Amino acid sequence: MKAMLIDPDRLFPAEPGVRNIARALYEQVSNLPLISPHGHTQAGWFARNQPFPDPATLFVQPDHYVFRMLYSQGVSMDDLEIGQPVIRNPRRVWHLFARHYYLFRGTPTRIWLDYAFQQLFGLEERLSEQSADLYFDTISAKLSTPSFLPRALYEQFHLEVLATTDSPLDSLADHQAIRDSGWKPRGNARILPTFRPDPVVDPEFPGFGERIAKLGEQTSEDALTWKGYLNALAKARARFRALGCTATDHGHPSAQTADLPESEAAALFAKVISGKSAAAEQELFRAQMLTEMARMSVEDGLVMQIHPGSVRNHNRFVSERYGRDMGADIPRAINYVDALRPLLDRFGNEIGLTIILFMLDESTISRELAPLAGHYPCLRLGPPWWFHDSPEGMMRFRELATETAGFYNTVGFNDDTRAFLSIPARHDMARRVDCAFLARLVAEHRLEEDEAHEVAHDLTYGLAKKAYRL
Amino acid sequence: MKAMLIDPDRLFPAEPGVRNIARALYEQVSNLPLISPHGHTQAGWFARNQPFPDPATLFVQPDHYVFRMLYSQGVSMDDLEIGQPVIRNPRRVWHLFARHYYLFRGTPTRIWLDYAFQQLFGLEERLSEQSADLYFDTISAKLSTPSFLPRALYEQFHLEVLATTDSPLDSLADHQAIRDSGWKPRGNARILPTFRPDPVVDPEFPGFGERIAKLGEQTSEDALTWKGYLNALAKARARFRALGCTATDHGHPSAQTADLPESEAAALFAKVISGKSAAAEQELFRAQMLTEMARMSVEDGLVMQIHPGSVRNHNRFVSERYGRDMGADIPRAINYVDALRPLLDRFGNEIGLTIILFMLDESTISRELAPLAGHYPCLRLGPPWWFHDSPEGMMRFRELATETAGFYNTVGFNDDTRAFLSIPARHDMARRVDCAFLARLVAEHRLEEDEAHEVAHDLTYGLAKKAYRL
Amino acid sequence: MKAMLIDPDRLFPAEPGVRNIARALYEQVSNLPLISPHGHTQAGWFARNQPFPDPATLFVQPDHYVFRMLYSQGVSMDDLEIGQPVIRNPRRVWHLFARHYYLFRGTPTRIWLDYAFQQLFGLEERLSEQSADLYFDTISAKLSTPSFLPRALYEQFHLEVLATTDSPLDSLADHQAIRDSGWKPRGNARILPTFRPDPVVDPEFPGFGERIAKLGEQTSEDALTWKGYLNALAKARARFRALGCTATDHGHPSAQTADLPESEAAALFAKVISGKSAAAEQELFRAQMLTEMARMSVEDGLVMQIHPGSVRNHNRFVSERYGRDMGADIPRAINYVDALRPLLDRFGNEIGLTIILFMLDESTISRELAPLAGHYPCLRLGPPWWFHDSPEGMMRFRELATETAGFYNTVGFNDDTRAFLSIPARHDMARRVDCAFLARLVAEHRLEEDEAHEVAHDLTYGLAKKAYRL
Repeated sequence: MKAMLIDPDRLFPAEPGVRNIARALYEQVSNLPLISPHGHTQAGWFARNQPFPDPATLFVQPDHYVFRMLYSQGVSMDDLEIGQPVIRNPRRVWHLFARHYYLFRGTPTRIWLDYAFQQLFGLEERLSEQSADLYFDTISAKLSTPSFLPRALYEQFHLEVLATTDSPLDSLADHQAIRDSGWKPRGNARILPTFRPDPVVDPEFPGFGERIAKLGEQTSEDALTWKGYLNALAKARARFRALGCTATDHGHPSAQTADLPESEAAALFAKVISGKSAAAEQELFRAQMLTEMARMSVEDGLVMQIHPGSVRNHNRFVSERYGRDMGADIPRAINYVDALRPLLDRFGNEIGLTIILFMLDESTISRELAPLAGHYPCLRLGPPWWFHDSPEGMMRFRELATETAGFYNTVGFNDDTRAFLSIPARHDMARRVDCAFLARLVAEHRLEEDEAHEVAHDLTYGLAKKAYRL
Repeated sequence: MKAMLIDPDRLFPAEPGVRNIARALYEQVSNLPLISPHGHTQAGWFARNQPFPDPATLFVQPDHYVFRMLYSQGVSMDDLEIGQPVIRNPRRVWHLFARHYYLFRGTPTRIWLDYAFQQLFGLEERLSEQSADLYFDTISAKLSTPSFLPRALYEQFHLEVLATTDSPLDSLADHQAIRDSGWKPRGNARILPTFRPDPVVDPEFPGFGERIAKLGEQTSEDALTWKGYLNALAKARARFRALGCTATDHGHPSAQTADLPESEAAALFAKVISGKSAAAEQELFRAQMLTEMARMSVEDGLVMQIHPGSVRNHNRFVSERYGRDMGADIPRAINYVDALRPLLDRFGNEIGLTIILFMLDESTISRELAPLAGHYPCLRLGPPWWFHDSPEGMMRFRELATETAGFYNTVGFNDDTRAFLSIPARHDMARRVDCAFLARLVAEHRLEEDEAHEVAHDLTYGLAKKAYRL
Repeated sequence: MKAMLIDPDRLFPAEPGVRNIARALYEQVSNLPLISPHGHTQAGWFARNQPFPDPATLFVQPDHYVFRMLYSQGVSMDDLEIGQPVIRNPRRVWHLFARHYYLFRGTPTRIWLDYAFQQLFGLEERLSEQSADLYFDTISAKLSTPSFLPRALYEQFHLEVLATTDSPLDSLADHQAIRDSGWKPRGNARILPTFRPDPVVDPEFPGFGERIAKLGEQTSEDALTWKGYLNALAKARARFRALGCTATDHGHPSAQTADLPESEAAALFAKVISGKSAAAEQELFRAQMLTEMARMSVEDGLVMQIHPGSVRNHNRFVSERYGRDMGADIPRAINYVDALRPLLDRFGNEIGLTIILFMLDESTISRELAPLAGHYPCLRLGPPWWFHDSPEGMMRFRELATETAGFYNTVGFNDDTRAFLSIPARHDMARRVDCAFLARLVAEHRLEEDEAHEVAHDLTYGLAKKAYRL
């Protein structure tokens, strides 16, 4: 067995001529700073700059990519201590994970983890039952050193922008604390909040009414009226912008939008706030709110991100026992072409508006998304995310989107992760796959090599900065 | 022209480095025994061990892959003597087939047939109008020799398990006769029934009520009551298990499941048994029965296979004139994520339950099936079948499923065939395509070679035995 | 930078062995005549044989592939003078296009344009802001020479058949004028009309009733009655056939067909002709008309082409300001399997009928279209068109369709273009991609090389001539 977990040529096409082109493209972009405009790390880590705890808490507990796979093969979530505030026996959890590490063969999780194990912790022997203790001890030891504190890692990762995802009700105290701390990462590097209003926009969320009331208090608006509610949201957006926020994020079950007359919208709001609305009314309200958010974006310049199409908390037993977001969100077939029309009829031709569409249903890429983004000036295609944030998924995205939408209606890469230590691995994977795709175009004489170099740079760095207005 | 129909490197990637890896992987698995846990061969062949008749009856008449293609190009099904109990002029039918053999270029049927022609019958010249008689005579001569009797072929094919598919009303006399015959294929090789209850579960089948009555007689239950009907099914399952059956099979139009209160289920049963139910009630009944079958599987350990999504007998003229299953079953878009939820809400987290999901709508693989199988402990993904049981289909399945579900939520290969002589060819194709996929992962440094060898063995042998509890 | 825009090996696979096979296949078909049985060039060009105007009017204004991409990146359609009868400042428009030429990287438009720039105009430097004037002047100069007149280009392109697309109300005077002109392109080359009845079949078209009345006048039928309307259509078809027409074309929102009893059909016609029909009635009428057209095709032998699944004029602002067909037609998910059933129940087994199905929803290829075409004798699969008329789109089509439908249920290539100068580039691309696909089959020993040569010839030439009865 080779004494390395990751190979310098990983993810490049096997054909030697194409591989050489891919290598040359990658060399030009491999060291560019990381732009992470969409993710789920915690500002508190950087505000407090405390060491990360043990390996199990770092790699297993927060990562539903990891524990859903173990669960699918019969490993008990109780044995993995999922859902516990603190892992009591991290070494035991780590062994359980190590024993099942073979399950990740062929998955991106395996590639991300191996990258972190080797690049960050110097491990070169494959994780297994046999090497579990070596891993646990090595990682534990390093985590307690200064160079593994969150801020040190941020700088080591060469992050230039890291965006978190935050509720409108969040005080953003951690973001303020980072600013107040005097920490200045090199360059103009910064950590920014993202405005994610789902908890105060989606009536299906438990405690919806209470949250609206709280939103009203925070903004000194009568948020239980339609007008006051919209004012409150606009003020919350302004508060986010003051801390550098450039984007909003909307995770709806569908891509449905609506453009109701004001009186109907107000009546609908009254209905959903009463707690007595039907599912169809809740869907219509979310749809209307996407258009309201677009209107506010036209006014304040925040970029909209729409992530539709996931059936959340599909496993009733798991969500009842362990809570939300436990690896059981399953995509469903989705229609963008009709669903987005009300919003696009109203704002689709606004030059100042940017809406980034994400997808979980790959059949929509060539059928709907690329044609839409290849026409409407406000639309851009987000990178493949979640289940598609993977070598095959990224490659299919380029193959399905590029011919109709081109490269310049896409927005670079998002890591979209809670797993801070996986960020460099994820960006590295995206850069390699994009270079592999470009190398094939060059080898097939569909693109000249000098152009491919320029595109590689844009996909890695330029497009994300431009699309997210960073 | 080369004096060979099949090449030792067929189906391996062209790039020499990747091909070498594929070859090495294939060498390790090419001679493993065949596990055929799902198919449509006839136990009677092995019970009676009589010679197969002429080439047309063997290769053309039973294989709707073959005659649907001829029909699509204007060849008359009457001229092919489809639907006749005995082919009167097999040589004429064979010539008609040979003259149109070029239509199969680029199809898996061509590869399966060439394999059988060369490997079993020693033919090395391509089938055509010119070689039609040579083929007919060569095959006819061999079929009358002892080494071409069903049992001899079974052993020559190195089959370890061969499962048939059987109605609950089947006496299983042929299976019993095989047991009683004293025939002992080498190893622990065996022929097993599979419990396919569609004819007594789907009210759309003609003669539904009569069949239920017959089921009651066979099991000494009052099968015209809901409780008696369920008891009768449980007893029929027990009878199958006594002859080695380990699995059930369910071919429904959709994947819909339901979990009705008992009184509603009983009322629905009374309605459908009355022969006066509407289409929606019949759909709901099938949906309820999938959940009932899952309940029985939790109790008796039979593995469930669900094959949804085909519009059966789409061609009215053909089904009226020639009957069911004449090559005109066409898939339709399907939703698993909502449809399976009632069943999964009830039994989705049962460790003792295995449900194997098959698909005909490839857009569901990355969107729904891999995420479902990558989470629920009871779910596994069946191999690509029917129209997708092909080099491109199998490769897309691995590309679309593996990154989310891994390899270990899949179950190896099924040949699913009526064409006994094609079984080795089909397994060989699956082994080659899997090795080709694994070789690319190795060449792109996404998997180490030692791991790929282990996975190749599992995909070929281990996973099927485990998933089907053989 | 290389002094060439297009490479002799473009679009061939990079692996040297496969590339060699592809080259050999391509050499045999690269010079075959072009069969263009479906497109949107104008017969008037050839009737009048006047020079094409400036480069902007030739390459930018009529090509929604081009201007939709510019619009998607914020270029104003007013600045591009889209929708103007005459471009007032073509050089300014050309510069705007040249400055944004990088947007087309990775798109087929780029490959078509570069082909025309180099092959027709001798340009070898890439189009950019810097080279914009060189391009404008070079192209302008050549367009005024005799060898760039429409008839000269037709002969230079080696066209054998060029079909236009025409309303039943069209006088076909231009087609008659071509015949009367005495122009005899070499071989049996000819320009033919295609019967596209959408404007007199789809009640959603503005002015529907007036058009029906005009149709009645032209055919001396009382077209405001159901029977007279059908007679009028039959007479119009006969008029087209007299000028060489062999096919009809139907661009419906869905693939829905219907087979109503005559009295219901007559009542429905009365309703839609009254101008007071609901959307569902209009859909049902279109559905019924597909079956009526199939009936007439059984009688008169015209081949039917069905292009369903596009949401036309999706961008309200653009269609209100610039009119129809401005690059904002977006595909939608589509079902063929149920939608076509009424028509197929009635005529699906007619040997004399040919229906060519096109798709914009790739998920239907392996799921519905290939199984349908691989069974029904009347069905054939049209080539990938519109957004899928591209290297990746064509390759996916072959990969998804061939294993189930074979090659012989497909119909060769359509360029489907308004951009006359792109026709050779488009056919060249299709030939190269087909040869690349075949080369892979040969390299993987899935097809013998002699057969691949025969298939390449059929895909390039034979199948189009046969399917369109040319």
